[in-house]
Amino acid sequence: MQKKSQFSGVIAPVLTPFGEDGGPDAERFVEHCQWLMAEGCTGLAPFGTTSEGNSLGLDERMELLEELVDTGELDPAKLMPGTGTCSLADAIVLTKHAVELGCGGVLMLPPFYYKAPSEDGLFRFFAETIEEVGDDRLKVYLYHIPPVAQVGFSLPLIGRLIKEFPNVVVGLKDSSGDWSNTAAILATYPGFEVFPGSEIFLLDGLRKGAAGCISATCNVSAAAIRHVYDNWQGPEADKLQADITALRKAIQAFPMIPALKALIAHYRQDPGWAKLRPPFVGLSMAEADKVIRTLADAHGFKLNFAKAA
Amino acid sequence: MQKKSQFSGVIAPVLTPFGEDGGPDAERFVEHCQWLMAEGCTGLAPFGTTSEGNSLGLDERMELLEELVDTGELDPAKLMPGTGTCSLADAIVLTKHAVELGCGGVLMLPPFYYKAPSEDGLFRFFAETIEEVGDDRLKVYLYHIPPVAQVGFSLPLIGRLIKEFPNVVVGLKDSSGDWSNTAAILATYPGFEVFPGSEIFLLDGLRKGAAGCISATCNVSAAAIRHVYDNWQGPEADKLQADITALRKAIQAFPMIPALKALIAHYRQDPGWAKLRPPFVGLSMAEADKVIRTLADAHGFKLNFAKAA
Repeated sequence: MQKKSQFSGVIAPVLTPFGEDGGPDAERFVEHCQWLMAEGCTGLAPFGTTSEGNSLGLDERMELLEELVDTGELDPAKLMPGTGTCSLADAIVLTKHAVELGCGGVLMLPPFYYKAPSEDGLFRFFAETIEEVGDDRLKVYLYHIPPVAQVGFSLPLIGRLIKEFPNVVVGLKDSSGDWSNTAAILATYPGFEVFPGSEIFLLDGLRKGAAGCISATCNVSAAAIRHVYDNWQGPEADKLQADITALRKAIQAFPMIPALKALIAHYRQDPGWAKLRPPFVGLSMAEADKVIRTLADAHGFKLNFAKAA
Repeated sequence: MQKKSQFSGVIAPVLTPFGEDGGPDAERFVEHCQWLMAEGCTGLAPFGTTSEGNSLGLDERMELLEELVDTGELDPAKLMPGTGTCSLADAIVLTKHAVELGCGGVLMLPPFYYKAPSEDGLFRFFAETIEEVGDDRLKVYLYHIPPVAQVGFSLPLIGRLIKEFPNVVVGLKDSSGDWSNTAAILATYPGFEVFPGSEIFLLDGLRKGAAGCISATCNVSAAAIRHVYDNWQGPEADKLQADITALRKAIQAFPMIPALKALIAHYRQDPGWAKLRPPFVGLSMAEADKVIRTLADAHGFKLNFAKAA
């Protein structure tokens, strides 16, 4: 029942590096994207939660995406940028822009400022976006992350969107952290491309028809996660899964985004990589050291950037 | 101890009317702003929560504000538009734009996507915005609305911002709905312009040094609220307050924004006024009738638009 699409596999919600001037650093960003693909990612999701996507300006997002596509070294069909915003107007602008650049999909948050919106209101938000973009190439992946967005997608809302837009609303990232929710979506909508938001649920997900995973930690451990994806039907699958689960749990014991940036800064020997944009702040030197040491000692974790060169 | 500023009094977070094409309707918007000032508002706060401000696009907000200022019929010093967004970059764009138009203040939400940000991260968000705008005319009013934004301003954070930017961070709208929080801010930071987010707390607030109120229902009952403000030291103050409290409670028993728009649509005999943007949906005819009837029957409520003509 597993649905194969161009995104099936391991997708990284790409971290956004910042330059000295505080703006997104396109050079580091493109380099990181290329390294992630070399590590085995099957697609990239810029401007997600891990990307500090909602801390970026509309223009910054569009320019960064253009810089990436303009390199010509990455098939835009592999890109699934975040384009959902609180504002219908801005969501339409970003979505249209992504489609026009040839992105294979968009990962859309629901409008998340107003709490407890009606199912009808959320349905209309997506319906108006899809109609206004009005492009057959548009593929929408719903981004369900209630711990952060507070607003999410109920099972009936997902069904209603699939029914109304079967060729557009094709998948969902489930970052609820609630396996029973992921399992319910997989069971209810076979063929719908479901990506758990953590590799902890990768093997369980694949066994129930999930398309892969889209996970923050793919920014630093895509190769190992891809290895599980490639071998999920093999005899070693459970053991491989246990390894990536252990590493994920070790990383998520720290503040996720600052920890990921600290790891990349350390192994790239590029302190500037550790920079975050408010409301996030970077780790102290001592905190960063603790992340690096904890993972190296307990998991033999290190990053090798030579491969992409 | 009451601080007098150009905003002291009664401020309406202006409703945003939408046209047939789904975009903000500048003509209806300007007309409503003029009527609100004629009703006794001492200032206007476009693009607040009641304004569906976060459902508007960046360009839509800026264009609507320009249309209002360009009429030349309203002193921009009376305007306190919402300019806080999740994104530092967009908040800077909106804030700079408002200052350049001559707006007397801006009402800034904290970045609200990422939950439980550190005090340091929030401080830096505002510090970077203020430094980047770099204009002595900038006056920031903090917008504390934890029931919706989830992220808010702690007492120490408020103090830190006042201390670092005493001529910029001059006030706060408290929509926590928690009188003890409003009272604590008033007691801790005398001279800071505090506006409760509901007229229910107007008289109590004024007696403790509040600057007035900024309240959704000012869109339909500014005159009565202004009457309390003008007479808060008179013998009738408690009775007048009881009347506006009763009306507010009657209105907030309904979904606030759809109900306010239904009232204006009804009394203006302009059904188009009732339109909302997703994720909000309008009331059904029956629901709208109930709002109108309930308020008319119990409170003799009606709106008179002749005054502004």
